[in-house]
Amino acid sequence: MSQKIAPLSGFPEWLPGERLVEQQVLDIIRETFELHGFVNIETRAVEPVDRLLGKGGDADKEIYGISRLAAEPDGGDRSQVALGLHFDLTVPFARYVLENAGKLTFPFRRYQIQRVWRGERPQEGRYREFTQADIDIISAGELPFHYEAEVPLVIADTFSRLPIGPYRIQVNNRKIPEGFYLGIGFSPEQIAGVLRIVDKLDKIGVEGVAQALLEAGASLEQAEKCLALANISAKDLSFVDQVRDLGISHETLESGLAELSAVMQAGIAHAPGILVADLRVARGLDYYTGTVYETQLVGQESYGSVCSGGRYDSLASDGRATYPGVGISIGVTRLLARLLPAGAIGTTRPTPTCVLIALGAEQDRAQASSLAAALRSRGIATEVAPTAAKFGKQIRYADRRGIPYVWFPPTEPDAAHSVKDIRSGEQVDADPGHWLPPADDLHPRLVGPVDSAQ
Amino acid sequence: MSQKIAPLSGFPEWLPGERLVEQQVLDIIRETFELHGFVNIETRAVEPVDRLLGKGGDADKEIYGISRLAAEPDGGDRSQVALGLHFDLTVPFARYVLENAGKLTFPFRRYQIQRVWRGERPQEGRYREFTQADIDIISAGELPFHYEAEVPLVIADTFSRLPIGPYRIQVNNRKIPEGFYLGIGFSPEQIAGVLRIVDKLDKIGVEGVAQALLEAGASLEQAEKCLALANISAKDLSFVDQVRDLGISHETLESGLAELSAVMQAGIAHAPGILVADLRVARGLDYYTGTVYETQLVGQESYGSVCSGGRYDSLASDGRATYPGVGISIGVTRLLARLLPAGAIGTTRPTPTCVLIALGAEQDRAQASSLAAALRSRGIATEVAPTAAKFGKQIRYADRRGIPYVWFPPTEPDAAHSVKDIRSGEQVDADPGHWLPPADDLHPRLVGPVDSAQ
Repeated sequence: MSQKIAPLSGFPEWLPGERLVEQQVLDIIRETFELHGFVNIETRAVEPVDRLLGKGGDADKEIYGISRLAAEPDGGDRSQVALGLHFDLTVPFARYVLENAGKLTFPFRRYQIQRVWRGERPQEGRYREFTQADIDIISAGELPFHYEAEVPLVIADTFSRLPIGPYRIQVNNRKIPEGFYLGIGFSPEQIAGVLRIVDKLDKIGVEGVAQALLEAGASLEQAEKCLALANISAKDLSFVDQVRDLGISHETLESGLAELSAVMQAGIAHAPGILVADLRVARGLDYYTGTVYETQLVGQESYGSVCSGGRYDSLASDGRATYPGVGISIGVTRLLARLLPAGAIGTTRPTPTCVLIALGAEQDRAQASSLAAALRSRGIATEVAPTAAKFGKQIRYADRRGIPYVWFPPTEPDAAHSVKDIRSGEQVDADPGHWLPPADDLHPRLVGPVDSAQ
Repeated sequence: MSQKIAPLSGFPEWLPGERLVEQQVLDIIRETFELHGFVNIETRAVEPVDRLLGKGGDADKEIYGISRLAAEPDGGDRSQVALGLHFDLTVPFARYVLENAGKLTFPFRRYQIQRVWRGERPQEGRYREFTQADIDIISAGELPFHYEAEVPLVIADTFSRLPIGPYRIQVNNRKIPEGFYLGIGFSPEQIAGVLRIVDKLDKIGVEGVAQALLEAGASLEQAEKCLALANISAKDLSFVDQVRDLGISHETLESGLAELSAVMQAGIAHAPGILVADLRVARGLDYYTGTVYETQLVGQESYGSVCSGGRYDSLASDGRATYPGVGISIGVTRLLARLLPAGAIGTTRPTPTCVLIALGAEQDRAQASSLAAALRSRGIATEVAPTAAKFGKQIRYADRRGIPYVWFPPTEPDAAHSVKDIRSGEQVDADPGHWLPPADDLHPRLVGPVDSAQ
């Protein structure tokens, strides 16, 4: 093992203290999703390549294929199916629903927290391996619209429990631009192309979008209307009048405005100030058909969305049955890659361990182990010192690891145990059968930049 | 999406109720590992193929390589490094330690729970994708021996918290067969081969091993001695005398006997009845150098080991520094694939959801959502009924999902809320600001076949 060791670009790994932050974030995400009635599933990491291809816009370019390095030519293993690593959790979930439909109860509310892989060129906030945390509600046949209003509220509740600073969930409804574009004279075949161009507004700007629309055959007036629509944004229901002021009417547009109003009304009632109706949001993936979501950290909008999703109608369909759904996905790695290096999120200590038992001599290890077992039985994470070094060295070991307490067993018969808080230096007698740390010290806790200053 | 949907052999997936069992098992494993002072890390799923090759006996045959399906010929992405999916968590951990040595505190106690992939032919208990839960303690330079005694005690504590029935941890020390084989006249070059042959005892039997040893150049007496050694097994320290009775002495053998005695003594003191000194246990992987572990479910020994590991001295070495370690790995998927279909493990209910709020009419949804938020704020997992169907249908929805309580908001002003335990049929008035379910009903809990009969 003498190869050079170097990180692989696009495959991030955390140090233990950073991973502890990620664990705590994932714990809160999981707890909140479960409070909202979602059950967990995991899917295998691989899907048939045929199933992955073409499901995510141009995601086919991003798929990693897998193959056995030493496939046996004499068979037994000749799988006819080419396999690839999944690039999101929605496509595998749709397949899981089709495969297990007879064993699930609909509407099926599931959450899924797993790694996904994309062979994209790595850049800030974009990785080749990263963790997503998804919720989806999928139904058999019909999916009631109210779930499109519920999904962003689950995210608002989740994010309110995380010290990630202010954020906004931007919502739109695919029916609004679709109906609007039809209303200004684009043909149904042109819609997807126009949507894709307008979706680049943040990247190429107003001039670029206008240019691209004209090149795609739009009139100057059509291009202006498209840009005017994309420019509409409101924290209340005023977006409806702003759209009406553009003087376009179409049945699909009306339907989209009514649905987006209902989503915004639910947001105003249950998560005031969080939702923004933003008519430029389109989401790249072709399979969305109704409400779509993106989420920005306030003041860090250029970083892009950290939580996105939408309604889809035909992703899970096997020709006989269709399972429409709505879902949203938190980009956990993406979020932490922004917050961790900035020191914007952390934990009260970098290790779960609460107590280090000091060791006077190596032959005391058996008693120290029994003492550790007694503390663990009350939920106190405890380890015994690695060696019977001088106590000063053992305290420094605890300090380097971030362990707050060092426990000293008695050095003479009938003497008392004592425990030292190595942060304050305070040392007190303690009964190993009853001592408990202050509740705040029992486990590490998640803190933001404000709390950590305490 | 009209392809045929079929499971992929070797890539198991759980239904939601089964996954809930796995989650609870993983929660207990994590909690216990943390109580013992282990911190978590995760490593990327991929390693350079060069690093994977030759690290796990003939594991090189089992590696899945990955490659981008649409690699761009015009570069920017021309990674010179061939990548493969990791086949265990030990090899990636050793690489992580080398890569981050300057940022870690040694001895470094870590746990790691991730999926691994092996391109083996699937069979009962063997999968192509499965989850392992590992602990390792790794040091810089020297690793104190006492960690070899500690590792099986952590597993004993973990398994004592899981309803998996009786089990035995079989321990051996590589120095015992090595010293013994040298003592009966094998050359140092022959040791690995002899070890590999004797390791097949369970598969090919006494006759088969004897035959293979003779073919490998052993004398009849040497073969008999090897088999006599492999036949020794004891729950106490009597294995030492049994080995002595074979009349062989060698310095390395003595060292191994002393170490195995120390491991057994710690087991007798802290986990009585769990450890068995079993001198046939060798473990296939070449990198083990001291104590080795396997774990069998009592009465299901033919299923093979569900938790294995050992001491290694040169796995993590970069030519300048060496980091010896000792670790053990719970085969989580393997364990559950045995226990789940047999009904030997389960949960008190198949969903985290505790309460379904019934809906008298669709226009009551906003109030129902506020009520749900109030219950969630006290940690009660709650969802609102999908539609305002007849109450009987809403109760059946809860019943099919395994949700124990249905909440009925008042149908007239000033009337009381009420909550129905749909298992007993009991319905009582309830205050949404104070009601709590019995503690046993707040969350699903893990149960074994005995407990579930209650």
